Amino acid sequence: MDIAKYLEDMKNMVNIALDEYLRPKADIPKILIEAMRYSVLAGGKRLRPILCLASGQVLGGRIETILPVACAIELIHTYSLIHDDLPAIDNDDFRRGKLSNHKMFGEDMAIAAGDCLLTYAFELISSSYTDGKVRPELALRLVQEISTAAGITGMVAGQVVDIKSTSKELDKNVLQYIHTHKTGALITASVRTGAMVAGATAQELEALTNYAKNIGLAFQIVDDLLDVVGDKKKLGKTVGKDSEQKKMTYVSVYGARKADQIARQKIAAANNSLSQFKEPDLLIQIADFIVKRQS
Amino acid sequence: MDIAKYLEDMKNMVNIALDEYLRPKADIPKILIEAMRYSVLAGGKRLRPILCLASGQVLGGRIETILPVACAIELIHTYSLIHDDLPAIDNDDFRRGKLSNHKMFGEDMAIAAGDCLLTYAFELISSSYTDGKVRPELALRLVQEISTAAGITGMVAGQVVDIKSTSKELDKNVLQYIHTHKTGALITASVRTGAMVAGATAQELEALTNYAKNIGLAFQIVDDLLDVVGDKKKLGKTVGKDSEQKKMTYVSVYGARKADQIARQKIAAANNSLSQFKEPDLLIQIADFIVKRQS
Repeated sequence: MDIAKYLEDMKNMVNIALDEYLRPKADIPKILIEAMRYSVLAGGKRLRPILCLASGQVLGGRIETILPVACAIELIHTYSLIHDDLPAIDNDDFRRGKLSNHKMFGEDMAIAAGDCLLTYAFELISSSYTDGKVRPELALRLVQEISTAAGITGMVAGQVVDIKSTSKELDKNVLQYIHTHKTGALITASVRTGAMVAGATAQELEALTNYAKNIGLAFQIVDDLLDVVGDKKKLGKTVGKDSEQKKMTYVSVYGARKADQIARQKIAAANNSLSQFKEPDLLIQIADFIVKRQS
Repeated sequence: MDIAKYLEDMKNMVNIALDEYLRPKADIPKILIEAMRYSVLAGGKRLRPILCLASGQVLGGRIETILPVACAIELIHTYSLIHDDLPAIDNDDFRRGKLSNHKMFGEDMAIAAGDCLLTYAFELISSSYTDGKVRPELALRLVQEISTAAGITGMVAGQVVDIKSTSKELDKNVLQYIHTHKTGALITASVRTGAMVAGATAQELEALTNYAKNIGLAFQIVDDLLDVVGDKKKLGKTVGKDSEQKKMTYVSVYGARKADQIARQKIAAANNSLSQFKEPDLLIQIADFIVKRQS
């Protein structure tokens, strides 16, 4: 299969759905929905929703049924970028090749838009699965899975440790904690929720969790590498920021060559965990794409 | 019944539950849970969870079953206060008689703590109702009710219009929009979710919604009045802030005397809507308490 075409098709489908879910309405303040749409529809690889959809598809799930939870995860990812970019946190002026949300709408709106995207993710899940296509128990488990991955033991935990460990001594355990939480948790939730909607068994879910944890770490290592050797134009964001802020990264801890090696090992481990599936090709190709990406 | 004692007892019960739900754990960054606990356990009237519990009790619901959703709503209320106090929004140094969250932990932590409280509210609901005491359909409806009340057509919508209308010309419709959304939506969700857990009929839910909308507005009017005539010590926050920031309030639009009159009318309307219930006394007394409160 042509993975580039698949990724492009899925990305377009996700973009159309996100645009639809974030339609301006009379009872939403215009400036608020504009600020939300600005960041959500600013582009991006849509890696998380695509992983969610692909994982479900490998198990024979229907795309239309997986799409709401896939998009909910992208809303949460976008909220985290908006809040991370704020002056009090990473103080980043650019994101996805455009001014960051607070540079465009002001800090007050960026905080509110982030809050609303996070809230709306749960509104989207809880209101999309009332037609019986997904059992309520399962829909509730999706809420649980995603809120756990995004919160105090997941994404924000990683973000907080990242903030607090800037400029401190390098520690491999802390680095691993940051990455498995800050980006890993939501990537794992993406793969797991897609599979859950498609009716994954406990054993299938375990294998996919293993796959997801490995690609999540590889994805972050490549991100660290791109911050050093990447092209600002392709990335659409500031490069060299990590070393300027003395952030702990896989590159600063292991060096670029070793970091690249670890990323490739993680991808191999991810793909190895898919042996029980009949047609895992889609997920294998996405994993390979992650380590080869330029942006 | 002794309403003061009831409110005190319920408040203590909610405080114990919140303390329990926010126990520090090995996998939560220490600074993050500390920042969350600081604001959640800083006191407060616990009006929203008490309304949730009382509404459920009037319909014969069990307190233990209502407690998780009641506490989830208080977590969302607290997150909104932390983010509202940020320098980019209301820039408030004090809250509930203590330094506001960002003055104590820094802006970065205050943003993260708020994000986590919001996320944890949904984690709490989705993980508390897996034991079968509440049907999954109902638990999912609780998520839907609360996310809708807190988000783009609810609380944050009100907050955004409030931010954007500061110092502008007085407009009664805008004022009503701000109040019904910024505080009203979550108060209404409190009353409704408690009743939903207790198995309210559609008719009962409609009556309680009417009650909630009226007390929500009365509560906000009293808040506006207390900002003018209140005692900083009793309130635990800065007074005179609204007029200093040229905020549109019921007092600035209608004057103190008329605003007080409107609040009393709303309480009367709230209590009138309870006629179908056998023992609505609890809710009536809470309504009366709202208009008489000094803090």
